[in-house]
Amino acid sequence: MTSLREIMDLASRPGVLSFAIGLPAAELFPNEALADQAAHVLRGDPSALQYGIPYKPLKSQIVELMALRGVRCTEEQIFLTSGAQQGMDLLSRLLLPPGGQVLFEQSVYDGIHLATRQQRPEILTIAADPATGMDVDAVESLLAGGARPAFLYAITDGHNPLGVSLSLEKRHRLAALARRHRMPILEDDVYGFLYYGDLPAAPLRAFEDEWVYYLGSFSKILAPALRAGWLVVPPHLTARLSSLKHGADLDTPSLSHRVISAYLEADLLPAHLAILRDEYRRRRDTMLAALRNHFPPEVRWNHPTSGMFVWAELPPGLDAAALLQTAVETESVAFSPGVVFGPGADHCLRLNFTSLSPERIEDGIERLGRVIRRAALEGDMPVLLSSP
Amino acid sequence: MTSLREIMDLASRPGVLSFAIGLPAAELFPNEALADQAAHVLRGDPSALQYGIPYKPLKSQIVELMALRGVRCTEEQIFLTSGAQQGMDLLSRLLLPPGGQVLFEQSVYDGIHLATRQQRPEILTIAADPATGMDVDAVESLLAGGARPAFLYAITDGHNPLGVSLSLEKRHRLAALARRHRMPILEDDVYGFLYYGDLPAAPLRAFEDEWVYYLGSFSKILAPALRAGWLVVPPHLTARLSSLKHGADLDTPSLSHRVISAYLEADLLPAHLAILRDEYRRRRDTMLAALRNHFPPEVRWNHPTSGMFVWAELPPGLDAAALLQTAVETESVAFSPGVVFGPGADHCLRLNFTSLSPERIEDGIERLGRVIRRAALEGDMPVLLSSP
Repeated sequence: MTSLREIMDLASRPGVLSFAIGLPAAELFPNEALADQAAHVLRGDPSALQYGIPYKPLKSQIVELMALRGVRCTEEQIFLTSGAQQGMDLLSRLLLPPGGQVLFEQSVYDGIHLATRQQRPEILTIAADPATGMDVDAVESLLAGGARPAFLYAITDGHNPLGVSLSLEKRHRLAALARRHRMPILEDDVYGFLYYGDLPAAPLRAFEDEWVYYLGSFSKILAPALRAGWLVVPPHLTARLSSLKHGADLDTPSLSHRVISAYLEADLLPAHLAILRDEYRRRRDTMLAALRNHFPPEVRWNHPTSGMFVWAELPPGLDAAALLQTAVETESVAFSPGVVFGPGADHCLRLNFTSLSPERIEDGIERLGRVIRRAALEGDMPVLLSSP
Repeated sequence: MTSLREIMDLASRPGVLSFAIGLPAAELFPNEALADQAAHVLRGDPSALQYGIPYKPLKSQIVELMALRGVRCTEEQIFLTSGAQQGMDLLSRLLLPPGGQVLFEQSVYDGIHLATRQQRPEILTIAADPATGMDVDAVESLLAGGARPAFLYAITDGHNPLGVSLSLEKRHRLAALARRHRMPILEDDVYGFLYYGDLPAAPLRAFEDEWVYYLGSFSKILAPALRAGWLVVPPHLTARLSSLKHGADLDTPSLSHRVISAYLEADLLPAHLAILRDEYRRRRDTMLAALRNHFPPEVRWNHPTSGMFVWAELPPGLDAAALLQTAVETESVAFSPGVVFGPGADHCLRLNFTSLSPERIEDGIERLGRVIRRAALEGDMPVLLSSP
């Protein structure tokens, strides 16, 4: 049982308490404000629904948004997409020839595999540490050994699935490698605005503006169903991306882009981001406390400072995919087993902490703790029984 | 001067009366009703903005919509897209191997070229008659001669750019050819609901449900910025299309899909379609009358029964692209020259009749008539001077 589809089917059974999917908290979506802004846009401008060129005011607003992430860019570097996934797809089409090389972490968001699949790339994999992120030494030695990837894919903050944010030193080294080897980095920063401590280090794009192509999204900070994201790329690429997007879905403005622009114009995002950060911090802290209270001490997990996920490692003997099956059947609780994100993580779990209330997080982690203890017992792993 | 971009730049100069682009009439968009429905959806359901599976209620509503076009299908055959262009892109990725054959009309919507470009197809072209549509004899002999296209692209009603609707006899023959040769037909029916006489013949999909893949869109019947369309395909293809769409832009519901569903649920579409048909009929009739009054009789044009375009042919000596330049510079009026849509139509014009008011259509065609007479005079073509 390893396909994402089967796991999602298990995790979405009615009544199952699920940590499996990277959902934002639906109850925090600014429905009212978006309804107001949609009405404002639709009643104020008949041409809001017409074909046209991508909506320029939103581009200059995104320039301001990027400044909050420590990135300086211009309107000419902004390319509007219908979400970060489309950014990956268009950049893959642009950069990756059939059979070309790409550089991915071993455990990584499966959407980057889907976005590149049609070019049947040669995938070079690199390890990543759940505490410090991508193994930059491995990147360096692959490049030194002659690898010439069309691009490296990196999730700098709140990594999916690892939850980790890249250390500042690794950011500097990666930016330098991109520059030295003229290797594009697709920097996926969809979780970057969701940080729970001090202002985090700036994304790679802040350290390298020619070879880092930045992917942003409103899905995690406003709402997924708006289908709106953006790229920050060198200006010479935007015309080629526009031509590709024209073939893919016309590259004409969506109503969502206008509604988001009106929402930003009304200056509603800062307060909304503050709400998201406060509540998601509370949920993360609840999950970390529940893990300490209910998981056997032989299980290890990291302490994410951004994003939506905790990454936990069972002792290597335990298979997380089998555990999921048991967890759903016996305790109605679900998570994403590591195997979904690549090889070598069969004993790992990705736990989403943003979509459930603190009470349900506490409850769900307690249930999951019971499942793990029982599995260890049945699997004759008494080491796991040492804990309370 | 042949690139679409240059022509669009010319046609969109401020103050230019433009027949160049296939725009629906912005003043007829149901902004108020959509604002109401957006508020209804957003205030009624917090999960309307969440990730999820494609919105099922809209699929069953589209089944009902298809029945109005004489097409019987099931919810399992409906696949939701972000517009017909995305349907073309996904079907091209699904059906067309690199270097594979495709069958296009010589003058055809350029978006199908853009959607297939990345596979670098071998394009087999067929002629089309502005009065009866695609040359089905030519299709038949290509197939008899061993052509094995990945698909044939057809716009059955209100063809873009030719304005023509395929005769019933040709529909039957094409459906039979698809069946006999197991050749998919991508049937682009984005103009099919915009007919101006009696109920037209049903689309190809009504005559062949296995080999005709139907592309529909809300862009022309509701509004382009909703970015919503659909496919009707055999059920065995929908899972593969979903996987492709997941890589392209996630295949998660957009807010627009919910808003359209609420709009359809409120049964607002029939009256809106009646308004569109009445007004567009009036505009078409105004254009046809103006062409009779102001164009030299040596210019020929067709009488579209559906869609948004009239196709006009100048005497072969006159170059439409050069004429456009003059038209913009001397009379501030624009159109799309035939060369934009393929070779062999240098003396042709595509005239959109939906986006301008009847008064402006009358004015613009009069101006264009003057430009043509003058060009003929300067080009030493006295034949054109015989008219009043």
